[in-house]
Amino acid sequence: MATNEFDIIDKYFKRLQVESNAVVIGPGDDCAVLSVPAGEELCVSTDTLIEGVHFPNGAPAEVAVSRTMAANLSDLAGMGASPFSFVLAITMPSANEDWLEACSEELARNIQQYGIPLVGGNLARGQLSLTVTVMGTVPAGCAVPRAGAAPGEEIYVTGCLGDAAKGLELMRSGQQDGYLVNRYCRPTPRIEAGIALRGVASAMIDISDGLMSEIGHICEFRGYGAEIMTDAIPLSDELVNAAGEDSATRLALFAGDDYELCFTAPSDKSDEIEQLAESLGLPMSRVGIIIDEPGINARRPDGTSMPYGGTGYQHF
Amino acid sequence: MATNEFDIIDKYFKRLQVESNAVVIGPGDDCAVLSVPAGEELCVSTDTLIEGVHFPNGAPAEVAVSRTMAANLSDLAGMGASPFSFVLAITMPSANEDWLEACSEELARNIQQYGIPLVGGNLARGQLSLTVTVMGTVPAGCAVPRAGAAPGEEIYVTGCLGDAAKGLELMRSGQQDGYLVNRYCRPTPRIEAGIALRGVASAMIDISDGLMSEIGHICEFRGYGAEIMTDAIPLSDELVNAAGEDSATRLALFAGDDYELCFTAPSDKSDEIEQLAESLGLPMSRVGIIIDEPGINARRPDGTSMPYGGTGYQHF
Repeated sequence: MATNEFDIIDKYFKRLQVESNAVVIGPGDDCAVLSVPAGEELCVSTDTLIEGVHFPNGAPAEVAVSRTMAANLSDLAGMGASPFSFVLAITMPSANEDWLEACSEELARNIQQYGIPLVGGNLARGQLSLTVTVMGTVPAGCAVPRAGAAPGEEIYVTGCLGDAAKGLELMRSGQQDGYLVNRYCRPTPRIEAGIALRGVASAMIDISDGLMSEIGHICEFRGYGAEIMTDAIPLSDELVNAAGEDSATRLALFAGDDYELCFTAPSDKSDEIEQLAESLGLPMSRVGIIIDEPGINARRPDGTSMPYGGTGYQHF
Repeated sequence: MATNEFDIIDKYFKRLQVESNAVVIGPGDDCAVLSVPAGEELCVSTDTLIEGVHFPNGAPAEVAVSRTMAANLSDLAGMGASPFSFVLAITMPSANEDWLEACSEELARNIQQYGIPLVGGNLARGQLSLTVTVMGTVPAGCAVPRAGAAPGEEIYVTGCLGDAAKGLELMRSGQQDGYLVNRYCRPTPRIEAGIALRGVASAMIDISDGLMSEIGHICEFRGYGAEIMTDAIPLSDELVNAAGEDSATRLALFAGDDYELCFTAPSDKSDEIEQLAESLGLPMSRVGIIIDEPGINARRPDGTSMPYGGTGYQHF
């Protein structure tokens, strides 16, 4: 049985080392030493997920790891960055070997799927939580910021929205799988779409806290606003069947955890975006427009506004 | 009063932004975007410090932040890296404004002292803990690894050892300041010494878990061992006065938290090291030698071995 931090690292984390041109010195030294390719800039973000706050108490390790990796990789996607490497700090109340084994397997799956080496970590005793710091690269000057939108530009989202919030609700009532639960437990960070949208999107953000909240972040830099057409919001059949159309739209606008992308582009990019969506096999739906005055309006087809149903996930 | 994550960031963390050539896009986007200078490699490490585990329950925010920054910056020092940037993930049970104010002030002090910009972070509700991921840079090929030591090379340490362990003991018995308490609460990461030792030290590691344990890490790669001379271990007068010489030596060998550097070098570097120590105003003491067989021996002047008193700090 693994009895201390070094034993646990040997048993569950050493096997996660992969060959990578990026890694000059891997885990096991004071620092990892990494080689950032010439001409590339480094994108960095950190996200903590805590049991009972960001994933349900007693959730399987796969869910905790999958959601932590998605939350972080999604931040890379939101910049148009390619995965480069990550470090992971785990706190856990005791050395639970089943949990560590499942954690290690899910990490291995992410490392392989996204080609992102784990280059360091920390293990300490505490409330169960995972903090990932993720690093990506982007050609110098090509990162897609939140602040690049201009009035008249169109607002797009990838995939479908609202699924994850309904999935969490179903999970809490005991459902263990199915499309909606899976969308909460195993979100897909839109890395490929983010990379493809470099030079196309004028502004981009990942949707972790709800679409209306994220559009607010895009608009806040210059006091812009947005008109959103509620009937253009992409909803899955599964969500509409489970929640009804009105409630589904509300979840899509105000609930988080979908990890899709929201981006803006001038209208002359619409053909290019349509082609991108087709080649990636990922819908990109035009849901609204940036306007030159503050305020974000979710407009129903009859012209009335859908009242604001929240401000995204409140961390405090 | 700051009521949510965004308000707290606005109130306590936005003011920490500093001008830096390294930062292309600062905090507030999905990722920070950083420009690593051409010809430099990136050094990365992550460390979590938890209330009640790595700093005492109810310790001032200054102590929590100072120790977290030192633990991370010390990992850069151990590679010979220059500070580049860092991200900080805080979990706290509620938005304690006094704590956040003191945290912000101590971060500002570290950012300025070490010239290291804070480029991102995360704030979540949970047991009080701080996770820093620190990034440094080093000219390509110049990072000083743990694994570079060879038999016959001499082992050095910077500064004095054992102070922090005694300082923690005094703090627990109610003492709030003084040299020893300060050595625990406000450790000095040896950044300048680490940089100066590039090309001089063959192997280097920072002393976070106790000298004997760290020398073990240096030796483990090729099955080497070490002979340590207990009477060569640098002890402060304050520690010897407070603990007596034998106990002081024991703390220096087996207790952690000093954040000094341990390094090895061939004997023909001894003059250079002496000059470095003098120009930095930081003692560098020769404490032993690497040998070609496993086992790390702390040898008293009379030839007997000091029995092994622990294996460094046990995280589990």
